Amino acid sequence: MNGIKIAVVQMEVVSGKPDINVNKIVQAIQEAKKKKNDLVIFPEMAVAGYLLGDEWENESLIKKLMEINESIRESSEGITVIWGNVMADFDKKGEDERIRKYNAIFIASNKKWVSNNILNGYSIKTLLPKYREFDDERHFFSMQKLANEKDIKIDELLKPFKIKTKNGEMNLGLTLCEDMWCEGYLINPTEILLKNGADLIINISASPWTWRKNIKRHKIVRNLLKNNPVNFIYCNNVGIQNNGKNIFLFDGSSTVYDSNGKIMAVAKPYQEETLEINLINKKNKLGNIENDYELVSEERDTQELYEGLVYGIKKFFEQTRIKKAVIGISGGIDSAVSSSLLVAALGKEKVLGINMPSKFNSIVTKNLAGKLSKNLKIEYKIIPIQDGVDLTIKQLRENNFEISDVTKENIQSRDRGSRILAGVAACVGGVIINNSNKTEMALGYTTLYGDLNGALCPIADLYKWEIYRLAKYINEINKQKIIPKEIFEIVPSAELSDKQDITKGLGDPIIYPYHDKLIRAFVEFRKDPKEILEWYDQKIIETEMRLEDGLIKKYFKDRDEFKKDLEEKWKLFKLSYFKRIQAPPIIAVSRRAFGFDLRESQNQTYLIDRDSDLL
Amino acid sequence: MNGIKIAVVQMEVVSGKPDINVNKIVQAIQEAKKKKNDLVIFPEMAVAGYLLGDEWENESLIKKLMEINESIRESSEGITVIWGNVMADFDKKGEDERIRKYNAIFIASNKKWVSNNILNGYSIKTLLPKYREFDDERHFFSMQKLANEKDIKIDELLKPFKIKTKNGEMNLGLTLCEDMWCEGYLINPTEILLKNGADLIINISASPWTWRKNIKRHKIVRNLLKNNPVNFIYCNNVGIQNNGKNIFLFDGSSTVYDSNGKIMAVAKPYQEETLEINLINKKNKLGNIENDYELVSEERDTQELYEGLVYGIKKFFEQTRIKKAVIGISGGIDSAVSSSLLVAALGKEKVLGINMPSKFNSIVTKNLAGKLSKNLKIEYKIIPIQDGVDLTIKQLRENNFEISDVTKENIQSRDRGSRILAGVAACVGGVIINNSNKTEMALGYTTLYGDLNGALCPIADLYKWEIYRLAKYINEINKQKIIPKEIFEIVPSAELSDKQDITKGLGDPIIYPYHDKLIRAFVEFRKDPKEILEWYDQKIIETEMRLEDGLIKKYFKDRDEFKKDLEEKWKLFKLSYFKRIQAPPIIAVSRRAFGFDLRESQNQTYLIDRDSDLL
Repeated sequence: MNGIKIAVVQMEVVSGKPDINVNKIVQAIQEAKKKKNDLVIFPEMAVAGYLLGDEWENESLIKKLMEINESIRESSEGITVIWGNVMADFDKKGEDERIRKYNAIFIASNKKWVSNNILNGYSIKTLLPKYREFDDERHFFSMQKLANEKDIKIDELLKPFKIKTKNGEMNLGLTLCEDMWCEGYLINPTEILLKNGADLIINISASPWTWRKNIKRHKIVRNLLKNNPVNFIYCNNVGIQNNGKNIFLFDGSSTVYDSNGKIMAVAKPYQEETLEINLINKKNKLGNIENDYELVSEERDTQELYEGLVYGIKKFFEQTRIKKAVIGISGGIDSAVSSSLLVAALGKEKVLGINMPSKFNSIVTKNLAGKLSKNLKIEYKIIPIQDGVDLTIKQLRENNFEISDVTKENIQSRDRGSRILAGVAACVGGVIINNSNKTEMALGYTTLYGDLNGALCPIADLYKWEIYRLAKYINEINKQKIIPKEIFEIVPSAELSDKQDITKGLGDPIIYPYHDKLIRAFVEFRKDPKEILEWYDQKIIETEMRLEDGLIKKYFKDRDEFKKDLEEKWKLFKLSYFKRIQAPPIIAVSRRAFGFDLRESQNQTYLIDRDSDLL
Repeated sequence: MNGIKIAVVQMEVVSGKPDINVNKIVQAIQEAKKKKNDLVIFPEMAVAGYLLGDEWENESLIKKLMEINESIRESSEGITVIWGNVMADFDKKGEDERIRKYNAIFIASNKKWVSNNILNGYSIKTLLPKYREFDDERHFFSMQKLANEKDIKIDELLKPFKIKTKNGEMNLGLTLCEDMWCEGYLINPTEILLKNGADLIINISASPWTWRKNIKRHKIVRNLLKNNPVNFIYCNNVGIQNNGKNIFLFDGSSTVYDSNGKIMAVAKPYQEETLEINLINKKNKLGNIENDYELVSEERDTQELYEGLVYGIKKFFEQTRIKKAVIGISGGIDSAVSSSLLVAALGKEKVLGINMPSKFNSIVTKNLAGKLSKNLKIEYKIIPIQDGVDLTIKQLRENNFEISDVTKENIQSRDRGSRILAGVAACVGGVIINNSNKTEMALGYTTLYGDLNGALCPIADLYKWEIYRLAKYINEINKQKIIPKEIFEIVPSAELSDKQDITKGLGDPIIYPYHDKLIRAFVEFRKDPKEILEWYDQKIIETEMRLEDGLIKKYFKDRDEFKKDLEEKWKLFKLSYFKRIQAPPIIAVSRRAFGFDLRESQNQTYLIDRDSDLL
């Protein structure tokens, strides 16, 4: 290998729209040719998208996608093209007894399929993820299963593809996404390819953004190359894709690494961009961009989060072609952040703020809602709900139903969500934006058909501390402070009864500084009360949960109080799943989002003697 | 082998409640001992349940379940016990990097683990289903992966377990559920076990009921035994289990087959029952129950469906401990069937019927709603919505919103669902029961926060023709005709505007005799418009879709009309997924239910040139 010019195309993949994607691919091939590239690379599942749900079972779609593979091959005159798409074997069956499909990486050169003497024109994803949101095993047949079927070692299937360039030959090791994230698997596809003579590793991905994932990837690449230093190219798509209950943000961040695992080139997140790179020799060591493995900071996390959310909202509206975002503005922090994100994503014209006071809403929050909307320059209406609430209570009483205080609170919430907001959204051809945060979602501190309504939950995978940080960040990046400082100061409150009177400092029954982290322990660390109580007893709880020193003592005077709250919150968490079943789609940004990422069953809480004194 | 007495325990497994399940297991072991059985068999995942969602990631639960395995072993004095539970290997990792877990079948005898010289005390599920609602690959490590890890053939792992009985020895071939449904897989575990000397095959299952699945199972067993005639025992649980979006009905129907695959004993569906059987010799041929492989009939399907739904509703209320079912009764067929099922499941005291007329509801349907409720002897209230609707319209107008006719219809629906029904349910400690049918759910002919509300959709996996059949069946099994005959005769209508005036014969924009089957083709046959239009062109559509002869001609005068409707319904089907994301849990009874069985993504409809003249 001696000098090769490569274009790494970080494209937006629109899932379910092969027409759009294939046009873009063909255009980018022409572009790459014009610029004298030898090789052009596209992301995993660049033709149909990655998260299609069970649409993978649609035979005529599969046939069409296979035809598209031929047409991309036809466009490869004078260049080598590598792209991700489905590979179907119509003569064989998958384990689901449908047409067998592989998640494949294709390679064509000069209008011909490139072969590695085992597979002609494509290789197959070896490691199929099936945790979190991933369902690869559901639809695709893995390289390991193919090896089992052929009764050969997988090493015999994972061979590099030799291509000729102007300056010599080159052995490309082709991998897909999870193939590089191989901890936990029995097989390390990169290692096998290197052993089999690859002198460049190419990984095409459809990899959504999550917290500090890119940092982790840099480390993994460095580790993969430790004993076999060759260049490594990571090509990821941008765009959003979803599985119904969750929307994932594909940040791209495509990267070319030198043979030490240092970054030679990196594409900007959430933008279409083509990286062009000239690899001189096999052990290229030109890492010319400051490596940022250790550049981890809160500020950076917040910025990435903000940019991701704004991008996600923008793309969601683009793809669903919805004209207007209708949002309830209460004067609290959640709706302040939510509406600020909307304006950043869609522009102020597309956002309609509605304040819906009942008799329990304070002048303070009503004024703050107005002030915020003025700062955002959005259209803003005040539509009171008291008449609706009174009518409902009257009708229920006439029918001799007893109405508890909690029921009265929920009637207000539903009046807002289902009578006013849903009505307004329908009138303006818009949708409701849901303002729930993750801790409320976890504890069911939300009303079905009320404040749980919406077509999108932009901040429901965020803890309250992240929401405050975003709020601060929003004020920092805007010259004028958008979010009034009083909104940072008032106590979080639903203002649904006298017991939640913020003017008396009364608010939600959630201690955010602690419960946020408790929910994180339940959801992301996968801990249960038994383990958390053990942390308490061992006096390591503040370390394990990353709490401020002394915080537990501040809120719970003794073990009994701590335990009582722990039990109560666990029960609420489990019980309130019935609400999450009907929750709108959540943008996933954490290491575990409610929806189709954390899969739950509606069961009674498990309360027996795994710690008989606990539950 | 020469004479062995076996107890096959068809128990109710309550998912997420190991305390309840393990008590039942230990009791049944004692019972089996008393009755001098040599062997007692329990279903797959009999300890924790099968559908736990990601609760399988909870380490302290796994530890607890492993302890329970030891305690069951301890209870095996004087008897051999076989049961399903998780087997964890705390020293190894799964592909998700968590503790490695197997879906296992345990075997203990006389307080000792029974070994097959490869595995001590357990075997592992070889085939892990990952289609439809199944997520086994997500949580469990398969036998095939274990063979790959050990670098041996799977035949070396799948060995029978030898046990000694009073009358000799016996080689038990132990399998789990999917292991017997092996079409499509590379491996046939039963065949391997037979080759390795098994003289009795035991399959423990957690297998939900679906349409004609038991018939299919009988055929499969017969086929598995064709070349190796031995007895076959199928032990399945009863109960309901769910994955949030879907509730599955476990019918049990545990069966002992003779070596020809004929039925020797079969347990009643949806009941706890212990089959006791005496196997005399290896090639027992005592099939003494009329085999019913071919006994397929519409009447039987309807009866099974009815019994399953009633059972499912009953168990749902038992497990969630909800006191009351609140149901909107419109006078139409769907709510008539729904409320009849509720009364059959819960008794009339637990059902509260609400009729919520607006000015568009006819006297006819209002009277029919009353008549039905009287026949059902349930508490019944009439709560009009006109005031609520008028208030909403007034408030929207005051704010200068333009209100379209469709929006006015949806306001009525939301007023019913979120203002009245949700309010009533909260007052009585009950939940709303959703009355949607499958075709409405598919086409989005339903209003979010309106008639889509509920905690349970008992009939949303049923087509209209099935609902009519159930209605007929309900009247047949009750001496007094519960559902008034006029309800069968009126045109299905939402009665939300003058355009849906049933007194003028005006109803829903759905041609049920055709669209029901079109939806079935989309959802269950996995066909798309291109394939369906091909059927039309080839004049085989009535055969392929199982339509009455001449039906297409009756509704569509030519190809253009047919095509236009086809395109429109496909788009509605795809587009309306945004509603299904927020739909309540659906009881799954078809071969593909909306929810977590059919997994969908919210994408634009795929409309390009796979048939350029079509879409």
